[in-house]
Amino acid sequence: MLLWYTDVAMCELLGMNCNVPTDIVFSFTGFCERGGRTADHVDGWGIGFFEGRGCRVFLDVAPACESPVAKFVKTYPIKTLTAIAHIRKATHGAVALENTHPFVREVWGRYWLFAHNGSLEAFTPALSGRFVPVGDTDSERAFCAILDAFAARGEKEMPPLEKLYQTLAEVTAWIASHGKFNYLLGSEHFLFAYCATSLHYLIRQAPFRTAHLADADVTVDFSSVTTPKDRVAIIATRPLTDNEEWVGVAPGSLVLFQDGEVVMG
Amino acid sequence: MLLWYTDVAMCELLGMNCNVPTDIVFSFTGFCERGGRTADHVDGWGIGFFEGRGCRVFLDVAPACESPVAKFVKTYPIKTLTAIAHIRKATHGAVALENTHPFVREVWGRYWLFAHNGSLEAFTPALSGRFVPVGDTDSERAFCAILDAFAARGEKEMPPLEKLYQTLAEVTAWIASHGKFNYLLGSEHFLFAYCATSLHYLIRQAPFRTAHLADADVTVDFSSVTTPKDRVAIIATRPLTDNEEWVGVAPGSLVLFQDGEVVMG
Repeated sequence: MLLWYTDVAMCELLGMNCNVPTDIVFSFTGFCERGGRTADHVDGWGIGFFEGRGCRVFLDVAPACESPVAKFVKTYPIKTLTAIAHIRKATHGAVALENTHPFVREVWGRYWLFAHNGSLEAFTPALSGRFVPVGDTDSERAFCAILDAFAARGEKEMPPLEKLYQTLAEVTAWIASHGKFNYLLGSEHFLFAYCATSLHYLIRQAPFRTAHLADADVTVDFSSVTTPKDRVAIIATRPLTDNEEWVGVAPGSLVLFQDGEVVMG
Repeated sequence: MLLWYTDVAMCELLGMNCNVPTDIVFSFTGFCERGGRTADHVDGWGIGFFEGRGCRVFLDVAPACESPVAKFVKTYPIKTLTAIAHIRKATHGAVALENTHPFVREVWGRYWLFAHNGSLEAFTPALSGRFVPVGDTDSERAFCAILDAFAARGEKEMPPLEKLYQTLAEVTAWIASHGKFNYLLGSEHFLFAYCATSLHYLIRQAPFRTAHLADADVTVDFSSVTTPKDRVAIIATRPLTDNEEWVGVAPGSLVLFQDGEVVMG
C-alpha cells in the first residue's frame, strides 16, 4: 500500500465547507491514516476550524496517525462552516511547529487559513513587510504573497468575493509558475481551492447515503446524522472514500466554495 | 469560596517563562479550577505555547474546569520557554471564540501572544489598519494598538528588548489611562507582564521544593522533575500555590522576564 503512494508528492490537503455547522471527524479520521499509516506524510499535521469569526488551529509535529492531538481532535466534534487540514511531508523547511500548516493570519479584521501541497522552487517574492513568514517554508512565503496581494487592493473592508477571486487568480498564476502549488485558503464561511496537479471534491447533500473511508474500515450513514437541507463540500488531494463519486478539479482551476457548493470556478 | 472571589474582577492571567523548555501542567491545573470551580471565570479560556519560533494556541468557550480541550491540555505536557493562559469572565464582547484570549499576531516575522485582565472604557484607538481586531473585545483592540506602536518604529527586524520595553511602556501608559489593564505579552523566549492592579510572580530555581496548589489538592515535588540549572518564572493574577513565596508586582510596573528571571522592570 505504501509503495503505491510513493509517487504522491509531499503533502496532502483536506478542506470542508458547509451550509450549516458540521463536524469533520469522519473525513479527518481517514485523512490522518495518510499521516504515517497508508501514506508517508509523517512530518507533522494541522487542522484549523472557523467557528463564527473565531478560528481554532490544532498543530503537531508528530505523525498524524500517532499524534495525541490528532487523537483528541478525532474524538471532539467541532462544528464549523469551514475547516482546512494538512499532513506534511517536509520538502522546504525542517520538521518544526513554525513550518506546520495550516497557517493563520488576519486581513480586513478576519482570520484566513492557508495550507499548501507541492513545492515551489526559487520562490523569493519581494514581500511588503506587512506579512512576514515566521518559518522557513515556501508555503508560508506564498501565503504572505497572497495576503500582500489582498492588502495591495487598498480596501478597508473585504471586497466582494468575485473581486477577491480575480485578485487571487492573478497572484496564484504568478506563484504557480514557480512549481507545484495546490492549496486551500479559507475564511469563516467560504473556501478557495486551487488545483495545480491534484485536487478532488465531493458534495454531500440529500438524499444522504453511507460513506466508507478508503484508508480505514470506517463507515458512516450520513442520512442518520443530517437534515435534508444540509450540504457539505469535502475537498481533498485524493478521494477519501471509496464508494462516492469524487470530482477531479482540472489543473489550473481556482474553485470557490460557499454554503457547501461551488459558486465560482 | 466563590463568594470570597467575587471582588476579583473579570479574568485571570497565567504566564510562564523558563530557561529550559518546561511544561506548565501543574500551574495550568490549578489555574483551570478558577474557570468555574474556585472562581467564576466561566466564559471561555485559552493557552498559547511557544515551541521554537512556532506557536500553538488552544482555545475554548466552555468553562476551563469542564472543557474537554482543557482536560486534554492538562494531560499533554507541552515543553515551552514561554506560555500565556487566560480564563475569561466576559465584560466587553460576547462569549465567542473570536473574543477568547490569548490572541496571536505576527510582527517582525515572529508570533506574539497577548492576554488581558481588566476592562477598558471608551478605548477606541485610531488603528493603522495593519492589525484589525477580529472580535469585539477591548483587549484585542489594545493588542492591535500595541502592535501598531511596535510597527510604527519602522524597523525591519525586532529592535533590542530594551528599546522594545520603552515603546511598550509608553503605549501601555496611554492604554492604561482608559481603565484596568493587567496584561501578559510574550514571544518565543521572553514575556512582558504589566501590573495595573494585581499580578504576582514566583521564580522556581534550585534548591527546588514541593509546591501545593491553592485551588486543588495537588502537590508536586519539583526537585524530582528538574535539574539544578532550571529556572522557571510563573506569573499569575493571584498566587497559584499556598506554600511558596509569591512576589506582588507593584501597580504601574512593566516587568520583562527572560530565561526564567526578571531582566527589566
